[in-house]
Amino acid sequence: MPQLIDGVWMTGEVAASETRDGAFHREPTRFRRWLTADGGPVAPEILTPEFHAPGATVPATLPAVAGRYRLYVAYICPWASRTLIWRKLKGLDAVIPITVADPELGEEGWSFRDPDGRSRDPVEGIGALHELYTRADPRYTGKVSVPVLWDTVERTIVNNESADIVRMLDGAFDGLTGNRVVLYPEPLRPTIDAWNARIYPALNNGVYRAGFARTQRAYETAFDEVFAMLAALEAHLATSRYLAGEHLTEADWRLFVTLVRFDAAYFGAFKCNLRRIVDHPALSGYLRELYRWPGIAETVNIDHIKRGYYSIRHINPTGIVPKGPALDFAAPHDRDRLPGRGLWMRG
Amino acid sequence: MPQLIDGVWMTGEVAASETRDGAFHREPTRFRRWLTADGGPVAPEILTPEFHAPGATVPATLPAVAGRYRLYVAYICPWASRTLIWRKLKGLDAVIPITVADPELGEEGWSFRDPDGRSRDPVEGIGALHELYTRADPRYTGKVSVPVLWDTVERTIVNNESADIVRMLDGAFDGLTGNRVVLYPEPLRPTIDAWNARIYPALNNGVYRAGFARTQRAYETAFDEVFAMLAALEAHLATSRYLAGEHLTEADWRLFVTLVRFDAAYFGAFKCNLRRIVDHPALSGYLRELYRWPGIAETVNIDHIKRGYYSIRHINPTGIVPKGPALDFAAPHDRDRLPGRGLWMRG
Repeated sequence: MPQLIDGVWMTGEVAASETRDGAFHREPTRFRRWLTADGGPVAPEILTPEFHAPGATVPATLPAVAGRYRLYVAYICPWASRTLIWRKLKGLDAVIPITVADPELGEEGWSFRDPDGRSRDPVEGIGALHELYTRADPRYTGKVSVPVLWDTVERTIVNNESADIVRMLDGAFDGLTGNRVVLYPEPLRPTIDAWNARIYPALNNGVYRAGFARTQRAYETAFDEVFAMLAALEAHLATSRYLAGEHLTEADWRLFVTLVRFDAAYFGAFKCNLRRIVDHPALSGYLRELYRWPGIAETVNIDHIKRGYYSIRHINPTGIVPKGPALDFAAPHDRDRLPGRGLWMRG
Repeated sequence: MPQLIDGVWMTGEVAASETRDGAFHREPTRFRRWLTADGGPVAPEILTPEFHAPGATVPATLPAVAGRYRLYVAYICPWASRTLIWRKLKGLDAVIPITVADPELGEEGWSFRDPDGRSRDPVEGIGALHELYTRADPRYTGKVSVPVLWDTVERTIVNNESADIVRMLDGAFDGLTGNRVVLYPEPLRPTIDAWNARIYPALNNGVYRAGFARTQRAYETAFDEVFAMLAALEAHLATSRYLAGEHLTEADWRLFVTLVRFDAAYFGAFKCNLRRIVDHPALSGYLRELYRWPGIAETVNIDHIKRGYYSIRHINPTGIVPKGPALDFAAPHDRDRLPGRGLWMRG
């Protein structure tokens, strides 16, 4: 992917900083402020793991205000989709508006343009996402990724790390909305943390490590980790309704965004083709249950997903987008045979 | 693919002559002599369709002699695999030796080299197949394809059209070998011809038209024809043991070479990804029955097939070869529920 270097947009392939020894290494996100209900400090126990590393500092904060913040997202991106899911489950449609990127990754990376070239972003009027990054930091160097949580008052980026954003959305706006869903409930946090720590490297990011590998060896290492993780998940979900037991939590939705893209994009474009998700009975039933959850199907756009991944020219130079596969996420699932209590509700 | 122009090897992508309006058009083969038992004229009724076109002339012939001819083949190529299948079914292993190309298509196209660069071809000592074509015709212009039926006496190409080669192998050597298998039996010829006429454009070549399309529209046209043909075949084979009824014929083996490559290569590399063959119950049982037929598994090399198709740089610039999919052609089939009499035997 192209990137910004010292505030200047550089076109090209995957940033050199992201490839070492033929393997893909995801560059860290850079904007890490948090929202809290009143702008006070974040409760330390909900901070994401990097804030617990030795020497890490607590994040600066801003107050949760209806309409003040905006999410810049793309339907193709699993990290952005996490935030779209929280927005649905937490009842934030009217509180946090969104701007959706074009599916194709062109010379300018994520962009927001009508067919006539005009910006579709009503707030900042940007044509390409990198403009938002240089507006936040004129000398910014690094990748330009979605999601971006944008502050329309200070006109800067609050946070561009989806793991942080979903954690703050879990509670910061509850006083405004009255929403009682808890996706990171206190008693299940150790279990959720443990699943996240396994699933992210092996699967969520594992498919990218397979797809963006530059050597056969790096590809095969990632491939093996992807399918070992899917096999472990299949075994677990054969007897457990959700990852952390009877409640649907953060860990499930972080898994969902990868599963829902797998057969349409990662299987072909990223060569993760040992088995499809539909070849895993428990995982595919679980995927259908989550897809059919109220509000979730609206966050999934398979057309954008396919057009997006297949617009990455260094893996698909013809730019041709597959017509397949035949997918049916809306088909009935058989998960009711396992005990489940759905989302965790506060109070 | 690169090609020869006026006897000079030109590297590059698909020959311009093969692409019009973004669609792939297969160039005709050029060497069309036939073998007959005694070098006499070919029985007109076994000639392939092009020889029946208005104005077509009858082919020149050469006599069938054990050890005189050699097949140059590649395991990745479905057309070459046709000839390997006939060689097995007709008991010609000791009569027609073979030289097998390296799986990867490099700058020189099909080649035959040890890791140290030496030719693996014991007869002509060629490093690349195009040398055989210029040996046959120093001013040759056109594509350089397998299979090639090579005459070691005249040191020239007899024929490079697999449809012709399998038709001549069906009978020309029977006097030498005593083999009684008939793959194009007289009573079934109209049925075989009809299936060939449908399956070749829509499926055998249809997958290439999808994979080598330069426009989304050309790709989608080919894709639709591929899956319409597979659906028609699935319906037919649900109640018929083989294409022409109770006997295994030429039409089946011409279909087989495409089916056996489909899930490993065409589904991903050529984006023929609506459904896999294993998602078609009748077709996949039929495929397994044919794969398990004595001698046939030896003609299939999935490792070569994957390495070959994924070495085509204009569709897979990274050159990375997928580890998947999981395939099991050797699993039991359920075709015995349908009446079948196997190969047609003469006399």
